[in-house]
Amino acid sequence: MANIFRTAAIYGMAVNLRAPDFLPPVRGVRWGAARAIKSKKRDDLAVMEIAAGSTVAGVFTQNRFPAPPVAVCREHLAAGGENIRGLVVNSGIANAGTLGRGLRDARKSCKLLAELLRCRARDILPFSTGVIMEYLPMENYAAGLRRCAQNLAADNWLAAARAIMTTDTVAKGAFRTVRIGGREFTVTGIAKGSGMIHPNMATMLAFVATDAGVSARRLAAWQKQTAAETFNAASVDGDTSTNDSFLLAATGLGGACRGAAAEKVRAAILETCAELAEAIVRDGEGATKLITIHAAGADSRAACRRAAEAIARSPLVKTALAAGDANVGRFLMALGNAGGGFEPRRVCMKIGGAPVIKNGGLHPRYDEAKTAAALAKTEITISITLGGSPHAAAVKTCDLTHRYIEINSDYRS
Amino acid sequence: MANIFRTAAIYGMAVNLRAPDFLPPVRGVRWGAARAIKSKKRDDLAVMEIAAGSTVAGVFTQNRFPAPPVAVCREHLAAGGENIRGLVVNSGIANAGTLGRGLRDARKSCKLLAELLRCRARDILPFSTGVIMEYLPMENYAAGLRRCAQNLAADNWLAAARAIMTTDTVAKGAFRTVRIGGREFTVTGIAKGSGMIHPNMATMLAFVATDAGVSARRLAAWQKQTAAETFNAASVDGDTSTNDSFLLAATGLGGACRGAAAEKVRAAILETCAELAEAIVRDGEGATKLITIHAAGADSRAACRRAAEAIARSPLVKTALAAGDANVGRFLMALGNAGGGFEPRRVCMKIGGAPVIKNGGLHPRYDEAKTAAALAKTEITISITLGGSPHAAAVKTCDLTHRYIEINSDYRS
Repeated sequence: MANIFRTAAIYGMAVNLRAPDFLPPVRGVRWGAARAIKSKKRDDLAVMEIAAGSTVAGVFTQNRFPAPPVAVCREHLAAGGENIRGLVVNSGIANAGTLGRGLRDARKSCKLLAELLRCRARDILPFSTGVIMEYLPMENYAAGLRRCAQNLAADNWLAAARAIMTTDTVAKGAFRTVRIGGREFTVTGIAKGSGMIHPNMATMLAFVATDAGVSARRLAAWQKQTAAETFNAASVDGDTSTNDSFLLAATGLGGACRGAAAEKVRAAILETCAELAEAIVRDGEGATKLITIHAAGADSRAACRRAAEAIARSPLVKTALAAGDANVGRFLMALGNAGGGFEPRRVCMKIGGAPVIKNGGLHPRYDEAKTAAALAKTEITISITLGGSPHAAAVKTCDLTHRYIEINSDYRS
Repeated sequence: MANIFRTAAIYGMAVNLRAPDFLPPVRGVRWGAARAIKSKKRDDLAVMEIAAGSTVAGVFTQNRFPAPPVAVCREHLAAGGENIRGLVVNSGIANAGTLGRGLRDARKSCKLLAELLRCRARDILPFSTGVIMEYLPMENYAAGLRRCAQNLAADNWLAAARAIMTTDTVAKGAFRTVRIGGREFTVTGIAKGSGMIHPNMATMLAFVATDAGVSARRLAAWQKQTAAETFNAASVDGDTSTNDSFLLAATGLGGACRGAAAEKVRAAILETCAELAEAIVRDGEGATKLITIHAAGADSRAACRRAAEAIARSPLVKTALAAGDANVGRFLMALGNAGGGFEPRRVCMKIGGAPVIKNGGLHPRYDEAKTAAALAKTEITISITLGGSPHAAAVKTCDLTHRYIEINSDYRS
């Protein structure tokens, strides 16, 4: 505990978030970590070894300048995700916007790790996060890979979570254990950064593994749905990085899972990712508050999502939330920029239970003191009704503070 | 001069912008101003009287919760814009999200001013800017209207520019004089706020008048084009207000303008509005730098515009610009979120002439010191080539600083 609050005091305070004390091993997965890229203080390279016979699925950035490691991941996963034996992640440098040289470096990192893990280069996935348009220091990188391979261990998840951090102030991990019919499956995951569609610094990365046996096809379907409901529903500042990646692996060393067991494992993966995604928002750059926005009743789920995101993305709303200022008109303004799919005259909104908007205007029972009290909390729920449909969506975001400006003016130095 | 810099020292410094010393009268237009709404220090209500026979055109917010005064303006302009005799603008309260009561107040303000100007309520246009979801103090408002009507004068443009300010630190005005064939036409305009599509605080307002005679239909066409190239190409923080309005009036008291004269007047209106739009960005909340972004060569003008806006809207780019930090990868990241219409491998970018991106990656002649020097300036031009087409677009924006957070956490108090 002492250590966590010391970190928070130095780097800024994440919202009611502390690093996990413990992350359980997943049969068939080992991690190693080393200091190799830029940091003089901590590990910034991590290697994950995955048992033969595992299935792997990946979801990557929608940015039109995907980094070379993302391109290599897509290429190596094109074989179907049943061949992957290892992955390597570095922080500090994103190896993005680095064109031919960056691509050669990403391929070389696969080749180097393949030699250490005794597999083919195309069985390795590379990941990078950090400053864009800088080149990787390949000699240090190669030496770091060797050290990672030397210290591979099943209980290194937390060390890996620390090695992949950039402006994160707290290492992020989550796990679930599933017991069914006398068997036990584990789902463990780590993440860094701040959101998949709207990440803040260069990149959100998440690595989640289970020892359940899941076919590659089913794993990809689970992952797609999970990403939409967790990492893609988290927003810090609306920027999308060149390197965002979410990797899901199933080693099968705990046995195959079918029927009710499969459903339980799927739910455990979803919960693990939801916890990681929320941790990312809680540790959003400069965040002092966690905001959960529920929107319901618009003509489609997409329209509900757009309304929640309009609130989550508005700098005027986010500064009002930071100040705890009941400048509630800004919420109306933001909802007015959410596009179509709802009738403005039917829009109602509550902040932490306090009525604010009714039928598209100030609520007749609006109470500034009550609303200010709701806004003074560090965890705030905003609920929006856009009409009478059964559609709904939720988005998590944080406030916009001085500290965000500080971090992003200073990050490179 | 002394006064301007004192203001800047107190409220924050606009980027190389000072209030105009003088704004020339426009034949057929008189302004009056008074203290009426919230301020104890300065006028916050202004009335413009427009001569009979004038033509008037309006462009309004695309926000889905347009304020009642915007609804009333649209209604009163539906008659064709040849009947308008006056307008009233208040700052401090936006009269937005105020539903039936707000609509009644906006209609009442027209009725009250119509009595004073001896015209019909439907000949008046109402405008408001300030806090959303608060009600207008109609008694003070009525008394203020009477004082405005008493001090109507042709040389009150500057007083009006001051009365419509909210978080603006400098009053904004611009003018052009057109001489052709022994005749002279004047175009004078005032504005407040920060952008039409992406205004910051509640609202950008602009009021521009000429004594040239222009048909209502032609005036509306000129205005539409002018808005697209000026106010709609200015961005501070990506939020769009409930009250944005741009009004253009032509009194005809300088005589009709046709052919070459019409072209000159149209150009003068465009230049006046371009200067006002730039002033709004220079005075963007917390701005310390003016950024002009040129994008060219994409498959369409819209795609060029999206690329320029992606740079203008990215908080990570805007904080890097504030810090003068050559964290150039953030520009690549932002361009990667600009949607389609260009080929990433053809993208090149320069900052103030220094090469940064070539063919979608780090430019081989990239020079960090040279780029840092370009970023250290208070006025920065970024030019982006997206391909070989003749399409182009330009957007102006400002940096994102601590001061933005301060202003928007404190504005209501």
